[in-house]
Amino acid sequence: MLRISRRLMSTVSKTNPAGLHNPYFTIKHGSKDVWSLINETAAAAQEELGKPIVNLGQGFFSYNPPDFALQAVNETIQTPQYNQYAHAKGNPNLLNQLSKFYTEHLGRPVPKEEIQVTTGANEGMFSIFFGFLEPEDEVIVFEPFFDQYIPNVEMTGAKVKYVQLNYPAKLDKENVTGDDWQVDWEGLKAAITPKTKIIVINTPHNPIGKVFNEEELYKIGKLCIENNLILVSDEVYENLYYGPSFPRPATLKSLPELSERTLTVGSAGKSFAATGWRVGWVQGPASLIQYVAAAHTRICFSTPAPLQQAVSEAFIAASENGYFEKTRQEYLKKYEIFTKVFEELDLPYTKADGGYFLLVNLSKVNIPESYVFPEDILGRGTEDFKLAYWLIKEIGVVGIPPTEFLVPSHRKGNGLEKCLRFAVCKDNSVLEDAVERLRKLKDYF
Amino acid sequence: MLRISRRLMSTVSKTNPAGLHNPYFTIKHGSKDVWSLINETAAAAQEELGKPIVNLGQGFFSYNPPDFALQAVNETIQTPQYNQYAHAKGNPNLLNQLSKFYTEHLGRPVPKEEIQVTTGANEGMFSIFFGFLEPEDEVIVFEPFFDQYIPNVEMTGAKVKYVQLNYPAKLDKENVTGDDWQVDWEGLKAAITPKTKIIVINTPHNPIGKVFNEEELYKIGKLCIENNLILVSDEVYENLYYGPSFPRPATLKSLPELSERTLTVGSAGKSFAATGWRVGWVQGPASLIQYVAAAHTRICFSTPAPLQQAVSEAFIAASENGYFEKTRQEYLKKYEIFTKVFEELDLPYTKADGGYFLLVNLSKVNIPESYVFPEDILGRGTEDFKLAYWLIKEIGVVGIPPTEFLVPSHRKGNGLEKCLRFAVCKDNSVLEDAVERLRKLKDYF
Repeated sequence: MLRISRRLMSTVSKTNPAGLHNPYFTIKHGSKDVWSLINETAAAAQEELGKPIVNLGQGFFSYNPPDFALQAVNETIQTPQYNQYAHAKGNPNLLNQLSKFYTEHLGRPVPKEEIQVTTGANEGMFSIFFGFLEPEDEVIVFEPFFDQYIPNVEMTGAKVKYVQLNYPAKLDKENVTGDDWQVDWEGLKAAITPKTKIIVINTPHNPIGKVFNEEELYKIGKLCIENNLILVSDEVYENLYYGPSFPRPATLKSLPELSERTLTVGSAGKSFAATGWRVGWVQGPASLIQYVAAAHTRICFSTPAPLQQAVSEAFIAASENGYFEKTRQEYLKKYEIFTKVFEELDLPYTKADGGYFLLVNLSKVNIPESYVFPEDILGRGTEDFKLAYWLIKEIGVVGIPPTEFLVPSHRKGNGLEKCLRFAVCKDNSVLEDAVERLRKLKDYF
Repeated sequence: MLRISRRLMSTVSKTNPAGLHNPYFTIKHGSKDVWSLINETAAAAQEELGKPIVNLGQGFFSYNPPDFALQAVNETIQTPQYNQYAHAKGNPNLLNQLSKFYTEHLGRPVPKEEIQVTTGANEGMFSIFFGFLEPEDEVIVFEPFFDQYIPNVEMTGAKVKYVQLNYPAKLDKENVTGDDWQVDWEGLKAAITPKTKIIVINTPHNPIGKVFNEEELYKIGKLCIENNLILVSDEVYENLYYGPSFPRPATLKSLPELSERTLTVGSAGKSFAATGWRVGWVQGPASLIQYVAAAHTRICFSTPAPLQQAVSEAFIAASENGYFEKTRQEYLKKYEIFTKVFEELDLPYTKADGGYFLLVNLSKVNIPESYVFPEDILGRGTEDFKLAYWLIKEIGVVGIPPTEFLVPSHRKGNGLEKCLRFAVCKDNSVLEDAVERLRKLKDYF
């Protein structure tokens, strides 16, 4: 039907090549995305108020990657080969380091054939979906979800089926943990059809901060095995977990055969505070990785060569200087600094098991009834967008409205409408500044 | 049908998740690609012979990017923001520089809204195809073609229609120019159907070295306008042209309205000898670019931030120090060095109007009849693969068999079967070494 209308239009207006566009991109994604909307609001507020806004919105780091990673870039670019095409599979040195990293973390030898370097974890997910999905196939995604998953699945022609991580009602009143965000198990079983090929999990989870526990992984994994599904585990925050250990589906002792159908996604950007480097990877059985490789080779051909080499050297340094463990300690401190104000104000949040986000329930905050919101905020139709706007303008702190991580029909009335997501991957001084500002919220209780 | 067989298989073998793969990637691309095959042959020969092979195969540079570009990387990575996500549209400084570059080269103001930065030109092409194509749409590609175009179109579900750049019969006997490779005009008209959305050209052309002349661009452009098509002009070698000027479809005086439907693709990798940086871009009307942007945002989200900033600084330096003009002069010299041996041996080639390849007809060379070829070379079924193999092993020079740039059914009997493609983007000493080795060919006439 779309096709016919486009053809009719092009008959009418021979002079309009824009009418030839793929309708997927207007029908579903024509409006301003949340990142642009919030960033532009923050920029405008900063200009208007003449004072800096504390940006805890998008999950980029306010500080630089570690010196050893920067130093590696400086050295790497002196060698001609590292400025030319890397192998489509990935720089051999990086593959070696990832092989070591996963050998250690999965507790078994992980050969290079089980790894594909991708141009960021985002393109890694996209390559997985293209490597396996055909039109009409189905993928199960937990809601709330990282927003890119949805178009990345749909661009293959496949469909997303949504299963809830249920908003825990007690988060209206008190702090909760990731375990309180429970999988809708009946919904999950019901969502699996003969067309289902993949279940996607994100652990540590954005925006909740939940780390899936072993029992949950077992139950999800069991369904994958029974229904011959692939489990895609987006573990980009894998080095930022705050419990004693990080359970991975690929190492589940209670269900070892799950590793035969698990594709694990990782990110140098998240691991080395370099989200702009666009170096990611996928780990999994060689028999599956070959299809990820085939798709990646056609999508991006190869991943930035000097940055791959630098990441390979950063892994060596990190294993020698305990960087990941130190970073975890630093992040525990960041959470301690930032959550202080919510404790003081008795604003409930989800204690993060991992990652670098904090999801806070702000239902106690009363925005003055006469407050005027612009059209594009009102157009979203949910309270969290109004809350985010007001918080930027009146408190000077940026958070992300989390209903963006829900499908439109699930937004209104969801507990997340009362919440905002804050990113703590910022200098401690930035977090302290945010705390100072957020204390003003008590004037609005 | 594919779908049914997959489902049947998965019913039979519940334990085989690899059976879930997208059949596109085995049916059409299961065998070893030309790059792997030739590179592995070269590596094996090098090991076996104990002496280095001169690699003029893949089009990567044997030397480093200019110092001003490397220096820019060193400086850039000191600033935290350049190590974090760039804007999905592109780094604003790079957009500014590209805006200046195209303002100069298109002879009219080109605002930033007409530019989208992509993760290499490859992902730029892919983003264009995804921004405009739906299943069953058609795209016209000239043959021989750069191999990535085909899967990049087909992954959207659209189909490729092939139109010949006819092999000039006189290349069997004497040197020809790009103009001698003529478009099959009747074939082009016949290939356009109501489903056609895009015509792709590559100028300067890989592997021929042809620069489309103004008359050709006019005729192709006219067909685009008459049929409401988009012209995608892959101009990644734009700074390497050897005539007095480089005609671009977006600046055609005889057909100015063509620019309203032209998307031009460029590459920092090709322009700054940094194929591993993966920074490219698409220029075109803002009404079209917005769909390229939408697709790119979902495919890669953003392009490597430090390398974008470095490229923006490299453009400033290049405009001050005449880098592009100097590089053109250096490449004229490279062609002079390399073509000498073919002049001496009276082996005909296509004089390159642009780019960094040379297509040479080697039909005078007689490979001994008893020569033994491995299975994967014989499996290709064309003479140029045997020629490439033999040249690596016996002469020590790597070239690429150009029938790879044809659809399989057009390979046997095509004039390209007698040719090899050599890349001259190498140090002069490498080219001189190649010349020395290639002189031995006369023993096989």
